[in-house]
Amino acid sequence: MKAREKGITVGKLSTGLKNCITDVEGVLVGHVTLDYQLDEHGEEYACTGVTAILPHKGNLFREKVTAASYVINGFGKTTGLVQLNELGVLESPIMLTNTFGVPAVTQGTLEYMLEESPEIGETTGTINIVVGECNDSYLNSIRLFPVKPEHAIEAIKNASCDQVAEGAVGAGKGMICFGYKGGIGSSSRIVEEYTVGCLVLSNFGKKEELQRLRYSAGDGLSETSDGSIIIVLATDAPLSDRQLQRVAKRCGIGLGRTGSHFSHGSGDIVIAFSTAQKMAHFSDEMVETRTQLREDHLIMNQLFTAAAEAAEEAILNSLSQAATTTGRLGREVNHLNFYKEE
Amino acid sequence: MKAREKGITVGKLSTGLKNCITDVEGVLVGHVTLDYQLDEHGEEYACTGVTAILPHKGNLFREKVTAASYVINGFGKTTGLVQLNELGVLESPIMLTNTFGVPAVTQGTLEYMLEESPEIGETTGTINIVVGECNDSYLNSIRLFPVKPEHAIEAIKNASCDQVAEGAVGAGKGMICFGYKGGIGSSSRIVEEYTVGCLVLSNFGKKEELQRLRYSAGDGLSETSDGSIIIVLATDAPLSDRQLQRVAKRCGIGLGRTGSHFSHGSGDIVIAFSTAQKMAHFSDEMVETRTQLREDHLIMNQLFTAAAEAAEEAILNSLSQAATTTGRLGREVNHLNFYKEE
Amino acid sequence: MKAREKGITVGKLSTGLKNCITDVEGVLVGHVTLDYQLDEHGEEYACTGVTAILPHKGNLFREKVTAASYVINGFGKTTGLVQLNELGVLESPIMLTNTFGVPAVTQGTLEYMLEESPEIGETTGTINIVVGECNDSYLNSIRLFPVKPEHAIEAIKNASCDQVAEGAVGAGKGMICFGYKGGIGSSSRIVEEYTVGCLVLSNFGKKEELQRLRYSAGDGLSETSDGSIIIVLATDAPLSDRQLQRVAKRCGIGLGRTGSHFSHGSGDIVIAFSTAQKMAHFSDEMVETRTQLREDHLIMNQLFTAAAEAAEEAILNSLSQAATTTGRLGREVNHLNFYKEE
Amino acid sequence: MKAREKGITVGKLSTGLKNCITDVEGVLVGHVTLDYQLDEHGEEYACTGVTAILPHKGNLFREKVTAASYVINGFGKTTGLVQLNELGVLESPIMLTNTFGVPAVTQGTLEYMLEESPEIGETTGTINIVVGECNDSYLNSIRLFPVKPEHAIEAIKNASCDQVAEGAVGAGKGMICFGYKGGIGSSSRIVEEYTVGCLVLSNFGKKEELQRLRYSAGDGLSETSDGSIIIVLATDAPLSDRQLQRVAKRCGIGLGRTGSHFSHGSGDIVIAFSTAQKMAHFSDEMVETRTQLREDHLIMNQLFTAAAEAAEEAILNSLSQAATTTGRLGREVNHLNFYKEE
Repeated sequence: MKAREKGITVGKLSTGLKNCITDVEGVLVGHVTLDYQLDEHGEEYACTGVTAILPHKGNLFREKVTAASYVINGFGKTTGLVQLNELGVLESPIMLTNTFGVPAVTQGTLEYMLEESPEIGETTGTINIVVGECNDSYLNSIRLFPVKPEHAIEAIKNASCDQVAEGAVGAGKGMICFGYKGGIGSSSRIVEEYTVGCLVLSNFGKKEELQRLRYSAGDGLSETSDGSIIIVLATDAPLSDRQLQRVAKRCGIGLGRTGSHFSHGSGDIVIAFSTAQKMAHFSDEMVETRTQLREDHLIMNQLFTAAAEAAEEAILNSLSQAATTTGRLGREVNHLNFYKEE
Repeated sequence: MKAREKGITVGKLSTGLKNCITDVEGVLVGHVTLDYQLDEHGEEYACTGVTAILPHKGNLFREKVTAASYVINGFGKTTGLVQLNELGVLESPIMLTNTFGVPAVTQGTLEYMLEESPEIGETTGTINIVVGECNDSYLNSIRLFPVKPEHAIEAIKNASCDQVAEGAVGAGKGMICFGYKGGIGSSSRIVEEYTVGCLVLSNFGKKEELQRLRYSAGDGLSETSDGSIIIVLATDAPLSDRQLQRVAKRCGIGLGRTGSHFSHGSGDIVIAFSTAQKMAHFSDEMVETRTQLREDHLIMNQLFTAAAEAAEEAILNSLSQAATTTGRLGREVNHLNFYKEE
Repeated sequence: MKAREKGITVGKLSTGLKNCITDVEGVLVGHVTLDYQLDEHGEEYACTGVTAILPHKGNLFREKVTAASYVINGFGKTTGLVQLNELGVLESPIMLTNTFGVPAVTQGTLEYMLEESPEIGETTGTINIVVGECNDSYLNSIRLFPVKPEHAIEAIKNASCDQVAEGAVGAGKGMICFGYKGGIGSSSRIVEEYTVGCLVLSNFGKKEELQRLRYSAGDGLSETSDGSIIIVLATDAPLSDRQLQRVAKRCGIGLGRTGSHFSHGSGDIVIAFSTAQKMAHFSDEMVETRTQLREDHLIMNQLFTAAAEAAEEAILNSLSQAATTTGRLGREVNHLNFYKEE
Repeated sequence: MKAREKGITVGKLSTGLKNCITDVEGVLVGHVTLDYQLDEHGEEYACTGVTAILPHKGNLFREKVTAASYVINGFGKTTGLVQLNELGVLESPIMLTNTFGVPAVTQGTLEYMLEESPEIGETTGTINIVVGECNDSYLNSIRLFPVKPEHAIEAIKNASCDQVAEGAVGAGKGMICFGYKGGIGSSSRIVEEYTVGCLVLSNFGKKEELQRLRYSAGDGLSETSDGSIIIVLATDAPLSDRQLQRVAKRCGIGLGRTGSHFSHGSGDIVIAFSTAQKMAHFSDEMVETRTQLREDHLIMNQLFTAAAEAAEEAILNSLSQAATTTGRLGREVNHLNFYKEE
């Protein structure tokens, strides 16, 4: 169940139809979940996965989208942000996985994109792959590298515009949030004729930081190390990269409202894109035309609100949708059975 | 009354003795409040002022302190951040005033510092003055420049280590927060043997954004334009400038928790300093020794929590302490009579 | 004489007709030069001034232009960059003066703009004034504040599209570059149908750092403290704020090629704007259309080259055009009589 | 031959004994060079490699060093900078390879570090691997991924404090600079009792941009696409991360002096570290002591000069040391036979 079905609403803006990132037209999400023993006794366990977010179903290299990132706290190994920041464009899927899965997922995504575009590295330049990560080493045998390049390719191929599977799925399989089972959560907001969608990979927080929710006590992990969260924000509103970054920054508000203080060891990173315009890789034009919102229009503040609300609700969904999960060394992380404060 | 005396507590950390920024040993605060008609009929009105925060009572140019800034949203005219960011030091008081008072306050502070240090611009280089601002034009005749250089000097001379006067005082005289009277608010937190103190100049938010507080309805301004907040954070914990910036960034959490979405037209800026070490302007040394906290120590996360809590509580105090105020054109902004959610 | 008239050419791109920033259509420059004794014996001397650069002759607040800044080295007191960076627009003239003249020049420019636009601070928000500075305290009695608000207004009113007066003029009156007389220098480059113009206020460098130029030896100051340079870049090419910042960054190449190593105590700052589009302050539109160059088009690299070349040449012009100047305490700084390396 | 042996000196500071990055005590460099046909006809060719730079020979995770990065132009796929920037520390070797080799090299380096430190991902957190890259696709069959994880491990194991092999070696095997053969170059400078060392992976520039050098004409590639350069700067001077970044920024001066304008499609990135202090990963201390240089001491400017000079000279060495190389499709890139301007 989504948090909203438990009576917990965040903010005042309406959600999209599915209340997930795929409410933004054209956006696709795909998961691969790994869940099996790696040795005879189950001491080593693959409890992890890969999640792919695609801005559209076309060739992402040849039709790029405007993008921005914002590092809330930089204790993380996300790759691809240097070029994304310099140019303000995204030209690959956004991939999520565990910390040590980043090289394999980068490799797999690269292979997929090279297959799609034989010109890359041949008659045109290279491609920038964006991969975010959280550390699932409590449940997953991260040192054994269960994630392989083919899992990235599979996650991309699995991607659809359907309702996003949430909780202990895809890259979220082994994640822990506030001492309870976390992982993938998604949400959306409607602002005038535009949609803002959010997908998080939640893996942060301590039990005692959880705010606003009443929950069945005693069953969360008391001692978890600092974690991370990757927040992916999508919108069809026409925003420049600078504007997108401003919107992305507001996701930190939602994160803070769940109880987080952006802890030292946390890689809290927002990656945002707009599907409003596609920029062709190949073009003979020298000048191009872009539309963007006037920043002093009321709608900008509404988009800020939408980003904060969507991030908070996506985190709550990552908790409410995540089933109790068992991983390596027989470790178990419980579902958070929360309900609304009265 | 402080918010806490109304039964509203923010977070779990203890406050300092005075629950204000002057709990950080050596820190001084001084106000000058302007409150008088500028014409016969009171259509034009000086409803503004200046607030000075001094890291210590010595010569701030000759004994600098470590400092950092963090721009939450940059729709603001704060001056002095370029050099503060480059060098990580503060060498002047931090001055607060209204938006169009910045040149006069910079001028006055400069004159004060030149008087203190005859060597500046003569036998040594220049000095970097830091001034933050919010727009009080609803109540104050900002276009008539009531703030003069001498008011800055007076505010500095008024500075003391006492309990900080809050609400409609100093630079806070004409400020509006969530449609109610805001202005100066202060708070503090204890983390192990260290103190974190906060002082805000609050001038942001719309009535409907106010979270967490129940309040007597109907008497706030429904239509206010985007405002701003300047957050000054002081600590005696030994932090490098990079560490200070990380701590400063967490003030945004507290701001978000009051209901703000860092609106487009808001200049939301944090300026932080540590009094733990004084850096001599004149020195023959080539190498110097600094102490700093280990970032992976638990205390870093506690400082993050302290910054978020202190910022939120200082904002609430700026509201709870601010009396109903009348300014230009007979405009009145009401005190927010809030009480705790049960 | 311009450096080019002495046979020194920088790079390969063509210059505009006037080889100065006013080659960018619509851009205006105005100076006020202060040059008089402040006491009977001339120990105290006003050897300073103000320079105003206006993107166009209309109301700059109501018709803003795209802008960006880049801090090469931040030991400086430039004001106005926080908002310029957040929004990517410039809504005031860019003003240049001495370090302690910043408050007076901000004040004067503010007064001018308020007069032009009675709505500011009344029915609309405030305005962001941009002022850059260098320290001319060797020749100018900076502690006595010879620059007054009215000098800023006068500089703005003096602004024209004519050939820019260079050298010891306006804000450049008291500046020193590589131990010789520096100050205002300007240049321009043509890139396809676009023009890139540059104006510098040069006040940096030590005699021994000067590269590339042969010059008559023995007559420069051997001991000067770290100085600064403000570089203003104008273009009519349609660039987004992010693109403008990329172009602005290349000015550092030109600065480096003159011999500078961006010394510690130097405030080396670039402020760039594009006149290609004017953004109305008042508008009911929600969506606006912008044109911008495709960054992968060859022209982007040409603009980078233009920025580097123009900055270098403007610096050389600030030297070649600056006459030997006498200031306070009878101090004299010599014209650099350079000629081309063979 | 090094450029200096051809009579070309850069700047005035003295070089270290070996005039390479290993003049900084304890720093190690290792290469693996791949040079073989990938198909029968040699149309596909491995003309690439890996280079490892180690701050010291101990366990880099357990004994971290202070570090900073500076992105001159961000069209690049360097990984590991998010965390390096947040914390100001380096905890892995700095690895260099071709663009599509980044995942394999990250993977191999990760495996090496995990083997060294069984606690990573088990009883302590994860590790941040730093990998820089340039695109060698003209000579190397980059789409066929000749670089494998084991090559990274081998490069690390090859690392020594000896004279650094330069030119078409390691990651430099397939690189092109100014249309001639480039690759690995190194240099050093002495500043008082400290050493600054530099190692570059050069792969940028067009033939016509090359400045300052006379060379035998006609044999360089006229048409090369935008390239990149990774600049690694090492020093034993005690610098904070902020200070290191300031020094790193000056490498752009040296790059600009070779003729580069930091072209659009270039990933020009500096990664700097100081070996002066090692920070233990495991520690019970809450407070630690650091030494750092006073920034207003003359030595800071000398370090700036050293960074600019060392970067320029390392680039020249990457050219002077690189032999004519043949790669895929029978393509050949010539050695630049340059000599000093007279």
